[in-house]
Amino acid sequence: SSSRLPDVGTTIFTIMSQLAIEHGAINLGQGFPDFLPDAGLIDRVEAAMRAGHDQYAPMPGVPALRQAIAAKYQAHYGRSYDPDAHITITSGATQALMCAVFACTAPGDEVIVLEPVYDSYLPSIRLAGAVAVPVAMRKPTLEDPRYRPDWDAVRAAITPRTAAIMINFPHNPTGAILLEEDLDALESLVADSRITLISDEVYEHMVFDGEPHRSLATRPALAERAFVISSFGKALHATGWKIGWCCAPARLTAELRKIHQFMVFSVSTPMQHGIAAFVADPAVHDELPGFYQARRDHLAQGLAATRLRALPCPGTFFMLADYSDVSQLPQQEFVRWLTTEHGVTTIPVSAFMVVPERVEPRIVRLCFAKQTQTLDDAFGRLRAL
Amino acid sequence: SSSRLPDVGTTIFTIMSQLAIEHGAINLGQGFPDFLPDAGLIDRVEAAMRAGHDQYAPMPGVPALRQAIAAKYQAHYGRSYDPDAHITITSGATQALMCAVFACTAPGDEVIVLEPVYDSYLPSIRLAGAVAVPVAMRKPTLEDPRYRPDWDAVRAAITPRTAAIMINFPHNPTGAILLEEDLDALESLVADSRITLISDEVYEHMVFDGEPHRSLATRPALAERAFVISSFGKALHATGWKIGWCCAPARLTAELRKIHQFMVFSVSTPMQHGIAAFVADPAVHDELPGFYQARRDHLAQGLAATRLRALPCPGTFFMLADYSDVSQLPQQEFVRWLTTEHGVTTIPVSAFMVVPERVEPRIVRLCFAKQTQTLDDAFGRLRAL
Ligand SMILES: CSCCC(=O)C(=O)O
Ligand SMILES: CSCCC(=O)C(=O)O
Repeated sequence: SSSRLPDVGTTIFTIMSQLAIEHGAINLGQGFPDFLPDAGLIDRVEAAMRAGHDQYAPMPGVPALRQAIAAKYQAHYGRSYDPDAHITITSGATQALMCAVFACTAPGDEVIVLEPVYDSYLPSIRLAGAVAVPVAMRKPTLEDPRYRPDWDAVRAAITPRTAAIMINFPHNPTGAILLEEDLDALESLVADSRITLISDEVYEHMVFDGEPHRSLATRPALAERAFVISSFGKALHATGWKIGWCCAPARLTAELRKIHQFMVFSVSTPMQHGIAAFVADPAVHDELPGFYQARRDHLAQGLAATRLRALPCPGTFFMLADYSDVSQLPQQEFVRWLTTEHGVTTIPVSAFMVVPERVEPRIVRLCFAKQTQTLDDAFGRLRAL
Repeated sequence: SSSRLPDVGTTIFTIMSQLAIEHGAINLGQGFPDFLPDAGLIDRVEAAMRAGHDQYAPMPGVPALRQAIAAKYQAHYGRSYDPDAHITITSGATQALMCAVFACTAPGDEVIVLEPVYDSYLPSIRLAGAVAVPVAMRKPTLEDPRYRPDWDAVRAAITPRTAAIMINFPHNPTGAILLEEDLDALESLVADSRITLISDEVYEHMVFDGEPHRSLATRPALAERAFVISSFGKALHATGWKIGWCCAPARLTAELRKIHQFMVFSVSTPMQHGIAAFVADPAVHDELPGFYQARRDHLAQGLAATRLRALPCPGTFFMLADYSDVSQLPQQEFVRWLTTEHGVTTIPVSAFMVVPERVEPRIVRLCFAKQTQTLDDAFGRLRAL
């Protein structure tokens, strides 16, 4: 029988992490911290297991966790989500994203994605029998050295078959964030349409330089048609715990839960209880922007002493760097060479591209969710370039 | 936009558990234990969290856990699965089942299921754009009071579009198990066909009266075309931990992982490490059949003193009971009445039926994964019937 995903291989993150292990390289590739979650968080998960929170959680999620998430959206974004009607706990943001795509499309529908695009979006759209329409982001220029969403290009890509627009801000891998003018543009784009928004906001607490994260939840006209998706993986330094969520209006949530119910049914009960106890106070996330901004600045300073040129990083825990001064190799070859010959692993941005001609020639992504010592060790190796 | 699953509501398990809570009923409905997992297992998960096993697991699963599963199939079923090429860790058996359906069907294909059918199968098939073909199991007769698969009926349902047959033995809700003659019949059914088998074996360690569990893994001619799916939820008394797996030949595993990779990417790292340490010795499951057989016998004895008539239970942790001597209500009304008026919650078998005319009039399902005291309390209430 033929494959539903004929072009899919192993993801670049797995490939590069594997290569890093084989070569003893410092892994600044796949996005995960190299430090422990808070011991108090682990205590709470442990307590939940011993207290007997070990059987099926309710399908939409443990109520206390959904309440904590509702409190967070109220405190951070001024939006009231009803835990019962609007919030669903998922097996990470990845599962929420796939459920959302299935929930708001029919086979043959089109889904607009912004390129560079995270690697799960296209397969999710394809499995749903829908068609991905990649729209390029605006690239850095001399006047404005940031990647930016290009709403005119998005508008031009809309057709009568457009069922959804999938966005991801703060944006992996470019670090781009949403400005007020972006929310304005998006609002006018979808006004009077039936387009659903799928907003992947997993880096919501990694926005720097005093900017707020502009969640789609902050705008009623966007929130009323949006799946707002995030996860605790990045915020709690535990990417392997796989607890995410989706906030959406009741009609979208109802469809999402129908899919979720049969895709996994429910999500780890002790993890949900433990996290609920830990994040009950929405202020728990308040120190994260500063925590990661310090790491970003440390990485930028370290790179300044190498021949890699850092690009601006307004958000996420990833930084892009131009290696034109080091090598003329194409990205895929450069990242292999950098791992095997210099012991530092990065991710080629080309892995996020659908349209090959749009690939920037010499840019790689570095993750700074790392201990200072790890970054310093990497600088030592990169200075040899 | 229209719904992909227009007929789906909240599952019967959720509805009945909710009703049980509202009425303070003893919940013998949804299948989960009311006792704790082993403290040593919890210790190991805790240790894994504190040891830093908190970031993304490898996409196919933690190697030590896949090795432990391979050792179990070798010890219990005499089959060598290669942990790298054949075994994938999933977010419970539910997620493995949906991935398997997507992996071996194309839109428009047919998938045969046995009725009564577990509630996730039909929506999974439908989401994959395939068509479920329900085939009735043989019902208990005076000569043979067991539910049995009806392979002649399965053979008659096969068409050129049949891509897969989904089976579930030990069978929820009837408790039916596979006999040698069933494996023979299945082997001859699929010989020379391109049909894939999807085998849900989550009750593999709950087979009673000295019978073995006859996994499809025991027969090379079946295993070479089968997704053999199970989970730790039932075996480790932790249905809420959501760690399952799928064993399949390399070509099927490759397709399954393409879907898995984008449906959840990976599964809880500390849970995987903790379970791997706990189940490293395949003998860890050896006491389960006796443990559950004692509970089954206790339930049968208790029911003998009531006007419910227990049906034979060769496997699973569910027992069927005929309530004809108590009430003439249809099943859905009877289970509500039993919960609200007598404080005992059960599951209507009609919830597992697709073809309404095939519903047995007066049979409900009781879960005996409960403490002796819980069962005794239920007997007290049921004797009043
Ligand atoms: C799920 S593995 C990839 C982690 C990640 O989000 C990234 O590195 O971009
Ligand atoms: C996933 S909730 C249902 C649990 C179960 O397998 C059952 O009760 O049949």
